[in-house]
Amino acid sequence: MTVSERLQPSPDRLGADLDELATVREPTRAGWTRTVFSEPYRSSREWVASRMRAAGLRVETDGAGNIVGVLPGRVPSAPALVTGSHTDTVEAGGRFDGVVGVLGSIEVVRMLRENDIELDRDLLVVDFLGEESNEFGLSCLGSRALAGELTTDHLDRRDRDGVRLGERYAEFGLEPSGVLEAAARFAGRGALHRYLELHVEQGPVLEQRGTAIGVVTAIAGIHRLVADFVGRADHAGTAPMAARRDALVAAAEAVLAVRQQGCGAPVHGVATTTRLDAPPGSPNVVPARIRMYAEMRSVDVGWLSDAQRRLGEEISLRAAEHGVDADLTWSVDNECLPADADVQQVITAAADSLGVGWEALPSGATHDAVHIARLCPMGMIFVPSRDGRSHCPEEWTDLEDISTGIRVHAEALLELDRAR
Amino acid sequence: MTVSERLQPSPDRLGADLDELATVREPTRAGWTRTVFSEPYRSSREWVASRMRAAGLRVETDGAGNIVGVLPGRVPSAPALVTGSHTDTVEAGGRFDGVVGVLGSIEVVRMLRENDIELDRDLLVVDFLGEESNEFGLSCLGSRALAGELTTDHLDRRDRDGVRLGERYAEFGLEPSGVLEAAARFAGRGALHRYLELHVEQGPVLEQRGTAIGVVTAIAGIHRLVADFVGRADHAGTAPMAARRDALVAAAEAVLAVRQQGCGAPVHGVATTTRLDAPPGSPNVVPARIRMYAEMRSVDVGWLSDAQRRLGEEISLRAAEHGVDADLTWSVDNECLPADADVQQVITAAADSLGVGWEALPSGATHDAVHIARLCPMGMIFVPSRDGRSHCPEEWTDLEDISTGIRVHAEALLELDRAR
Repeated sequence: MTVSERLQPSPDRLGADLDELATVREPTRAGWTRTVFSEPYRSSREWVASRMRAAGLRVETDGAGNIVGVLPGRVPSAPALVTGSHTDTVEAGGRFDGVVGVLGSIEVVRMLRENDIELDRDLLVVDFLGEESNEFGLSCLGSRALAGELTTDHLDRRDRDGVRLGERYAEFGLEPSGVLEAAARFAGRGALHRYLELHVEQGPVLEQRGTAIGVVTAIAGIHRLVADFVGRADHAGTAPMAARRDALVAAAEAVLAVRQQGCGAPVHGVATTTRLDAPPGSPNVVPARIRMYAEMRSVDVGWLSDAQRRLGEEISLRAAEHGVDADLTWSVDNECLPADADVQQVITAAADSLGVGWEALPSGATHDAVHIARLCPMGMIFVPSRDGRSHCPEEWTDLEDISTGIRVHAEALLELDRAR
Repeated sequence: MTVSERLQPSPDRLGADLDELATVREPTRAGWTRTVFSEPYRSSREWVASRMRAAGLRVETDGAGNIVGVLPGRVPSAPALVTGSHTDTVEAGGRFDGVVGVLGSIEVVRMLRENDIELDRDLLVVDFLGEESNEFGLSCLGSRALAGELTTDHLDRRDRDGVRLGERYAEFGLEPSGVLEAAARFAGRGALHRYLELHVEQGPVLEQRGTAIGVVTAIAGIHRLVADFVGRADHAGTAPMAARRDALVAAAEAVLAVRQQGCGAPVHGVATTTRLDAPPGSPNVVPARIRMYAEMRSVDVGWLSDAQRRLGEEISLRAAEHGVDADLTWSVDNECLPADADVQQVITAAADSLGVGWEALPSGATHDAVHIARLCPMGMIFVPSRDGRSHCPEEWTDLEDISTGIRVHAEALLELDRAR
């Protein structure tokens, strides 16, 4: 029996972990809700730390709130190998997004220890704080902080209740100064060796093609738009249609323009209006103010920048036709980031050695890997998502598919540990 | 000097009243906000009652919360003449909508008393409770109750906080049983003689034509739509455009369809989407649920019913194209209601006798008059609105225009008092 053949995950143990973590959630919400800074998230993190300890990891929480489980290697001076993902969810989300990478990596540690396999390098299993986007307009809080990308400006951003991000950290028991200093730990390239993340695809490609493993080629860039439409409040019963400056009509035109751009995108380009906000108004008033949140994503950098320009022009033009002012603010959540070619090669070799089919594909979703890529080369392994669904209660990946992913993940980590 | 020549309003006194009432409002909101059941509204009503008393009216508050100021006539057995309007506002509304009818009628009472003019009939000056639409989806609370149109089902409706309308009444010091019993006072036709309401036009017609007085021919019917769009939550970064069931896109199509129907309307037909509500969601999720509030109004009954059918078909068709379920619930806020021909004739004669220009025009806005019309023949007098603006802080009518309206109002009331 080779090492690879001996390294088998336990579906029962893994299934029990998935089920137990799934019980920790907002009790009154549909689906699975465990958003950053919430009480269920606080509880779930204690549970994750205890599972890490039970697997034999030395657990610490860094200044940025990342839970780091360390499996010491034979060569303490060697740059560490890093894996992990996140355990927070969107509102009414699912049970697999992020969770598979954290629990799957803990399972890898158990598999290694059961088989008395020691790595040369320290293996860090990280449960990154708050990967999902939040009201502060920031995803990947923990990995951003580790990568030194979180700033004091970010800490001054406010949520819908007007509370600063820094205050939310403090309420959660994390000193804002400590959050900013967390980056010092791995500052500069070289402290970390490689980053490998196991994740559900969150799209339909693997399932449709009957392929077990996705080897991520690149993570899509995300450009975000906040558009403020300012028209004029008028009596909805008396203001003639032609004299109106209806902000909601201008926003509706913009929603359709966003979709139109997305539909014209190349492979793995999408555009979505995720929210329209209006101040509480009377039912008899022509809406005067609407705020719109939209985003465009692609691994095609040229399309993304062209589409952003076209969309901006279209929204402004349509708004002007309705006499509505449109104020557009674009920001880049992350630029498109290719996965490291060598790490991709290690993953495909691992899958081949186990006789598991794989497919190269880009990631439309963003991941902590985008930020950790500032510290070391990164790669990602995808497992199939049923019907391509994610960020919803129907999100599902079979235990068998997760187990296959964990085997490839373990094999690739062993190979990366050996790589110079 | 004829009676009509002697009956002059005092612009100073009227202006002071308008200014004083305008100070009673939500202090932290833009514009003038005095919504039903709010603290500012409670205060403003005490002020209105005190101004009525100072004008010599006997003031009572009926079970439905209407403030009724009675000027006793010479013939106590004669059916009473009724005037009035409302002093609540929409959120961030103006200073004239409703207020002109209440304060203008109090001014008429002062003018009559100063000139020792006694009416044959009791004159009731009513400040109707909560005329503006509220979170319960009910406008004209006070006049509906008086007309016997308020039901226990209405009292069970809930606002956004889940509080029943009946509870809101009780918190405001009005027993729900008393609200329902208020109709007994004038039950059946004959108890009241005529209803005449002075109001700002809230539209641009009078100003554009340079006409002082509008004689209302009919009040537009209002059909309301609540549409629930149910699509599917998907990850905004990974779900292919063609596979989405985006509820916000379907709702945006509906917003534009509403506008299109309104733009195709005959004179005084309008259609407006006044609100889109989405549950709080994550910024990374394709919206799955949107609720839309829209309304169509017209004095053309045929167009209104045809346009409602066309709009419903269009919304459902577009939603289906996006794989989104659309559940449409229509309700009739009020059917189109013609003003009484004889009352219109009295108003035009009054304007002619004072040498004041008038124009017949329909009302796109609804009014308490719609409901009081169940109890007696009604008519309405409009005065110009600057730029046709209303339900907004910019709402404005010159004191001179209000004074002209009050003169015609007084003259018409005198004539209606004499009419058998």
